[in-house]
Amino acid sequence: MLDALQNRIRLPALKDRITSAESAAQWIHDGMTVGMSGFTRAGDAKEVPLALAERALSQQLKITLMTGASLGDNVDKTLTEAGVLARRMPFQSDPVLRAAINRGEVMYIDQHLSETVEMLRTRQIAPIDVAIIEAIAITESGAIIPTSSIGNSASFAILADKVIVEINMTQSLELEGLHDIFIPKHRPHREPVPLMYPSDRIGTTAIEIPPEKIVAIVITDKRDSSSTILPPDSETAAIAGHLVEFFKEEVRLGRLTNSLMPMQAGIGTIANAVMNGFIDSPFEHLQMYSEVLQDSTFDLFDAGKLDFASGSSITLSAQKGKEVFGNIGKYKDRLILRPQEISNHPEVIRRLGIIAINTALEADIYGNVNSTHVLGTHMMNGIGGSGDFARNAYLSIFATKSIAKGGKISSIVPMVSHVDHNEHDVDIIVTEIGLADLRGLAPIERARVIINQCVAEPYRQMLRDYVTEAQQRGGHTPHILEKAFEWHTRFRETGTMLLS
Amino acid sequence: MLDALQNRIRLPALKDRITSAESAAQWIHDGMTVGMSGFTRAGDAKEVPLALAERALSQQLKITLMTGASLGDNVDKTLTEAGVLARRMPFQSDPVLRAAINRGEVMYIDQHLSETVEMLRTRQIAPIDVAIIEAIAITESGAIIPTSSIGNSASFAILADKVIVEINMTQSLELEGLHDIFIPKHRPHREPVPLMYPSDRIGTTAIEIPPEKIVAIVITDKRDSSSTILPPDSETAAIAGHLVEFFKEEVRLGRLTNSLMPMQAGIGTIANAVMNGFIDSPFEHLQMYSEVLQDSTFDLFDAGKLDFASGSSITLSAQKGKEVFGNIGKYKDRLILRPQEISNHPEVIRRLGIIAINTALEADIYGNVNSTHVLGTHMMNGIGGSGDFARNAYLSIFATKSIAKGGKISSIVPMVSHVDHNEHDVDIIVTEIGLADLRGLAPIERARVIINQCVAEPYRQMLRDYVTEAQQRGGHTPHILEKAFEWHTRFRETGTMLLS
Ligand SMILES: CC(C)(COP(=O)(O)OP(=O)(O)OC[C@H]1O[C@@H](n2cnc3c(N)ncnc32)[C@H](O)[C@@H]1OP(=O)(O)O)[C@@H](O)C(=O)NCCC(=O)NCCS
Ligand SMILES: CC(C)(COP(=O)(O)OP(=O)(O)OC[C@H]1O[C@@H](n2cnc3c(N)ncnc32)[C@H](O)[C@@H]1OP(=O)(O)O)[C@@H](O)C(=O)NCCC(=O)NCCS
Repeated sequence: MLDALQNRIRLPALKDRITSAESAAQWIHDGMTVGMSGFTRAGDAKEVPLALAERALSQQLKITLMTGASLGDNVDKTLTEAGVLARRMPFQSDPVLRAAINRGEVMYIDQHLSETVEMLRTRQIAPIDVAIIEAIAITESGAIIPTSSIGNSASFAILADKVIVEINMTQSLELEGLHDIFIPKHRPHREPVPLMYPSDRIGTTAIEIPPEKIVAIVITDKRDSSSTILPPDSETAAIAGHLVEFFKEEVRLGRLTNSLMPMQAGIGTIANAVMNGFIDSPFEHLQMYSEVLQDSTFDLFDAGKLDFASGSSITLSAQKGKEVFGNIGKYKDRLILRPQEISNHPEVIRRLGIIAINTALEADIYGNVNSTHVLGTHMMNGIGGSGDFARNAYLSIFATKSIAKGGKISSIVPMVSHVDHNEHDVDIIVTEIGLADLRGLAPIERARVIINQCVAEPYRQMLRDYVTEAQQRGGHTPHILEKAFEWHTRFRETGTMLLS
Repeated sequence: MLDALQNRIRLPALKDRITSAESAAQWIHDGMTVGMSGFTRAGDAKEVPLALAERALSQQLKITLMTGASLGDNVDKTLTEAGVLARRMPFQSDPVLRAAINRGEVMYIDQHLSETVEMLRTRQIAPIDVAIIEAIAITESGAIIPTSSIGNSASFAILADKVIVEINMTQSLELEGLHDIFIPKHRPHREPVPLMYPSDRIGTTAIEIPPEKIVAIVITDKRDSSSTILPPDSETAAIAGHLVEFFKEEVRLGRLTNSLMPMQAGIGTIANAVMNGFIDSPFEHLQMYSEVLQDSTFDLFDAGKLDFASGSSITLSAQKGKEVFGNIGKYKDRLILRPQEISNHPEVIRRLGIIAINTALEADIYGNVNSTHVLGTHMMNGIGGSGDFARNAYLSIFATKSIAKGGKISSIVPMVSHVDHNEHDVDIIVTEIGLADLRGLAPIERARVIINQCVAEPYRQMLRDYVTEAQQRGGHTPHILEKAFEWHTRFRETGTMLLS
């Protein structure tokens, strides 16, 4: 163990900071703000949070917890069950935490993922007291080398008073060199982010902080939780098929070349399946400039379709995780992990001209998208980075299956019950039925295209009837406000959006 | 006249392109896409559009019209009345055109103002056939020097097949040197926008195009329409007062210095009044990085409060217009006009750390903002640049009076009837009643602060009742969907949102 640690803690003076999770957790007091590593299940701190939860069973202990994005299987769940979470930001996807949020017990602030550290840096939200960062190693100078994600870890460590490092022995030392840590300067003298291509390296490979801030080091051999995405099915394959056809046509029209533009893909089953669709496509030399690199990224590498992928985390299924992390050398020169502030930076997204592919829970006939709130009220996960990308992208695509819950829910509704992405930020809506190209269309034209292209019967006819009735009332964006949510209320009352 | 023209058309070969508006208008055919200068009433083409309207009385003539933003008093009105406008983008504010849009007669595509030329450049929307650009002069090399706005003029001229120039003799030649034309390169080799401070000059002072593209030159002496904003009143003064107090507190907390951060202010009466409020404030050496420079910009210069202002247009009241344009030398070294793609560029907005102050028609208890659609259906003006700024700003503020139409409308409602700016993009809501600081708050906390700080009675109690009832149903963002728009439908049916 100590031998193995030689390479993991390279600044000898830090060796005496090695301690148990319980004693490391003593640095955290009731009322503190804690910043933890972790981005969509990858690279989360795995020991200290559980020790915190344990302590909370016998002590008053409530914290504000900030992370990169969602954490692995146990962390948010255990912290929630122990009542540790007073506030949580900027993203989560845990069923137990989600339920507590929806009961109003945890104050959840979901944010554009590029913004959290800007708000911290400018002291617009409570400062980080303690940061807990998972690492493969600490360098000779005391710099922290992250694991399978960066997320907000770099800025958390830089801004925190005290830093706890969890050295994860299961995360290969070969990950060293994968990361590219670039932190924008304080304003008003901030320079451009000097990144012109997804493969540009602009920073350091480790998080540089004064080593004396590292107050505790915990050793773990717990693995990242694997991703929970489901394999592609016939509907997600159809969605991918429509997108491939769309891009072929864009190439034919001379708007894109065969290598398209750098692509971002959202989280979840649908986004992963869509990216998988590019394997059997004529496109080549693709690049990704995304947040989460899912299984499909590596499938695309293996298929020879993808030249480079930049992200903020690598989140894989159990099987894929073994293949990739067991053989990371094979991919390393085609991969970069960045702070989420940079992976999601409006500046870089606009400059590179990203094709952004995100997922909707529901969309409406005018092109507004709800990605977060079931029936307008209950939080699913959060907006994540989808808003950073959709607003600033070259092309903003939203995918969803046309129906949910066995057809009792139509994912295309008269009016979305919550707006995460408005009509201005949505260029394409695609379902397994078809694809609606909304570029340059007025609302009423968008309604026609979306209804014709994307909606399953009998909802298609129901939407046509809604529009016809709404048009009697006039307006640029015709609606009958007292009926706009009738489908949602019917589902709530009868269990289906269908008319009986 | 010819003498005066000597300085106005400096490339002799172009002199024979001088023609009448009628004959210049002959270059425009039915079905074409026309790009015209003009940004919030400033620097619009004033002759050829009217000639087009005239011709449309006797000929089938329908066009897609793109501009920077809104035009002066006559242009959109006359074109609408003549039935010339098939499609219109990306912004307008004309009552006659607005009515036609709301009758469904003109297809209106309102867009984030930074995005129109990106979509043109990448050929995602119909290409510009003819550009009509107002100029103070054409240089020796055939470059076009714009007048009181730049808007999209530079890219329209660069991308169009043919260019018509309107030389406006009422616009002073002293404006030469005010403009800074920078056009981002085509991707995938685009470089950073090399702008670090509002006062940075990064481009040329004229729009460089091959002179042979200039097919006609029309001479005019029609003046810009003056702005229609109303003077500050007690309510807008109260709004400004709350903001000044807020910023004082931010300075006290060490989050801002006394010169704050570069400010953007939206269009209209409220935004202008808010900026006026900074005259009697302790802040100094302010800077603006905005779109429209309204009267208040020059009042702030005169008060010694403002060091520099960057915008895309100068839109002034009649009186202020005389003072400023009659004496432009006084201000010229503290002013820059830029293409709207640069004034509104996400990259620059995020880098500079803009304080964005925009106006809402209505906001809801959770912090969503409607800036465009009256009662969710009828277009007012358009989203303009507010989305470019609000999403990418350091701090995003929305101002509105707490009531409209003599109190029959509450500007704070249970749920906005249209979402232009969602909860993630709104940091501060301010009305004459008070200011709600929403940073770092969860939805239910935002509701409490907004209701307590911003709402007039009796609406305040009505909103409290709504929240109490909604909370019975649970959820992160409690709503009663079947009642969410009850206030709007009551107004529609009874003429007031108040309960009888
Ligand atoms: C929207 C999102 C939840 C979709 O996830 P997904 O796994 O691809 O989609 P699925 O179709 O499998 O739907 C997930 C669940 O939502 C349900 N659902 C889908 N549409 C629904 C609707 N209109 N109403 C209610 N529930 C719906 C599904 O039934 C499924 O429920 P289950 O988990 O009980 O089976 C997910 O992409 C997300 O959280 N997005 C927001 C953040 C984001 O976009 N990040 C990208 C950049 S970080
Ligand atoms: C929102 C906007 C219309 C407000 O303009 P303003 O002149 O400051 O605001 P006012 O309070 O005077 O309201 C303008 C009109 O809307 C009406 N109004 C205000 N709130 C309303 C509401 N909630 N419902 C219906 N009408 C409302 C007012 O009564 C007034 O009507 P009138 O013209 O018949 O008198 C204007 O700022 C806008 O168009 N914004 C969108 C674009 C933008 O933000 N650009 C900034 C960057 S370009």
